[in-house]
Amino acid sequence: MAVYTEVSDEDLNAFVAQYDLGGVLSCKGIAEGVENSNFLLVTGKGPYILTLYEKRTRREDLPFFLGLMQHLADKGIACPLPVQGMDGQSLRELCGRPAVIVTFLAGMWPRRVMPQHCAELGQALARLHLAVADFRLERPNALSLGGWKDLFEKCAPRADEVSHNLRATLEAELAELEAHWPKDLPAGVIHADLFPDNVFFRGDTLSGLIDFYFACNDFLVYDIAICMNAWCFEIDGSFNATKARLLLTSYQKVRPLSKEELEALPWLCRGGAVRFLLTRLYDWLNHPPGAFVKPKDPLEYLRKLRFHQTVRGLGGYCLGDGGSYDV
Amino acid sequence: MAVYTEVSDEDLNAFVAQYDLGGVLSCKGIAEGVENSNFLLVTGKGPYILTLYEKRTRREDLPFFLGLMQHLADKGIACPLPVQGMDGQSLRELCGRPAVIVTFLAGMWPRRVMPQHCAELGQALARLHLAVADFRLERPNALSLGGWKDLFEKCAPRADEVSHNLRATLEAELAELEAHWPKDLPAGVIHADLFPDNVFFRGDTLSGLIDFYFACNDFLVYDIAICMNAWCFEIDGSFNATKARLLLTSYQKVRPLSKEELEALPWLCRGGAVRFLLTRLYDWLNHPPGAFVKPKDPLEYLRKLRFHQTVRGLGGYCLGDGGSYDV
Repeated sequence: MAVYTEVSDEDLNAFVAQYDLGGVLSCKGIAEGVENSNFLLVTGKGPYILTLYEKRTRREDLPFFLGLMQHLADKGIACPLPVQGMDGQSLRELCGRPAVIVTFLAGMWPRRVMPQHCAELGQALARLHLAVADFRLERPNALSLGGWKDLFEKCAPRADEVSHNLRATLEAELAELEAHWPKDLPAGVIHADLFPDNVFFRGDTLSGLIDFYFACNDFLVYDIAICMNAWCFEIDGSFNATKARLLLTSYQKVRPLSKEELEALPWLCRGGAVRFLLTRLYDWLNHPPGAFVKPKDPLEYLRKLRFHQTVRGLGGYCLGDGGSYDV
Repeated sequence: MAVYTEVSDEDLNAFVAQYDLGGVLSCKGIAEGVENSNFLLVTGKGPYILTLYEKRTRREDLPFFLGLMQHLADKGIACPLPVQGMDGQSLRELCGRPAVIVTFLAGMWPRRVMPQHCAELGQALARLHLAVADFRLERPNALSLGGWKDLFEKCAPRADEVSHNLRATLEAELAELEAHWPKDLPAGVIHADLFPDNVFFRGDTLSGLIDFYFACNDFLVYDIAICMNAWCFEIDGSFNATKARLLLTSYQKVRPLSKEELEALPWLCRGGAVRFLLTRLYDWLNHPPGAFVKPKDPLEYLRKLRFHQTVRGLGGYCLGDGGSYDV
């Protein structure tokens, strides 16, 4: 669950009075998300989402995140739009935390990912990558190679408590990634956390993307690698090539990938798996006993990493030859 | 938090299709409540609450609870109304659990209880007690004297782990309660769990009561005793006589209490404190490590019990002499 901060009705009413939204009819904490406190706020003008940013979201990054949502919404990408108060500001304080109200997005995230979801996802991701081309703010990806090494150092002493030989596996993998990580690919703002629970659908049709709080600048194709990890494996750990193929072909209908991007994909998938393996491992080793939020299983990503390690080229994903990839 | 069951979009769509509510626009787990899974469901017709009954709510009690909500709503008491499907049924199954959709109630529960809240509460509680007079179903209170003794037996061996001498304190108190518990007072259906988070307000005005899943037949004035425990103590443990006075005077504007009911109140307050002390103690001793729901502090109710034990008659609550209580 994710309601870390209790908001009193007085504080909430005073907060909402700064907007042209009518009175507060209801405000209920939402049990999803793990980083921030989210509430479904119903006012005289309808439903909205109220987010209070907790300590893992850095204040200085908020103008980037909110500016990005505004930019994307202006470009017609369905995503939450920060609502401005009567003073023109969308970012203010509530209960000592930075807080925003954003528009409500209809749709539900898919509990069971079907191939059609991946086709929709690919198109939406490519449209996102085109839409950010003229977004001016930048935010370096703190969770790329350098960040992984820092996380690894913190987790290394106790990594083998979680899985036999995990420390050595990670150490070797980080060295490999460092040697093979691409240096020069088309880059821009990526979502960087586009898991199924951040993508809403109505029926089979994608209705919007949410949760841009890991967005950063990196190689665009790395966003695809994160999605392949998050969307194209079954619960039993098996890789679903149909889903991956739909993700990539739909993406390329909107934004074709270069030969270099396609060739880099297997390494980016390994990197993506390591990124989530490490953050989950860190949370696993460091969550306070009795914490509200159950940490996610790091070993899910160790299994995904092992799969990627066996892949040689795009053929290993049943995605055809990199150079002549059939769009 | 309280979402124990994950509902897939396919299952949800099929479920909602049995109602005349339009399509599902959104469904988000609500982070409040501890017994059942609650979702804020938005359909083409507006917001609703979807509840899945988890194992602590007994299936055979559901007709009582749902019938009560329907009865109260028919009598003009603001509370959630079970929505009937196109087959006329309101209770059906979802994900292997009994499930209902109820109407959405505007309002927020007061995070900080003010005296005016207690005045509103008193009137609403009295109206509830009048409205149930002709409700035909019955449900004995499993959490009265007999139930407390069962709970005590289960907790006794480890009670002193939670507080010094708690076992002996409870044993003596149960004997006292047994000797002094009233035998014959006006009885009917009581809410039995009317804590602040089950009472919604818009501004200072009460907008509705929720969560009837402990409702049962018992002395009506026992419901007041539960409310005095839940609403009339400050966080520091002190008893707020102004709140208690407002609760009682407002109640009596709608339903005057007899001399016998008023005289019994101190014992009923002790019983109410023991009831929540024991259920919280049981949960405290038996919650699985790493459980989602943080158990509530049983000692809050030990402190309340100790306060009630010092009270001799209504004067101890600054509520005047029982017999000539000034309404």
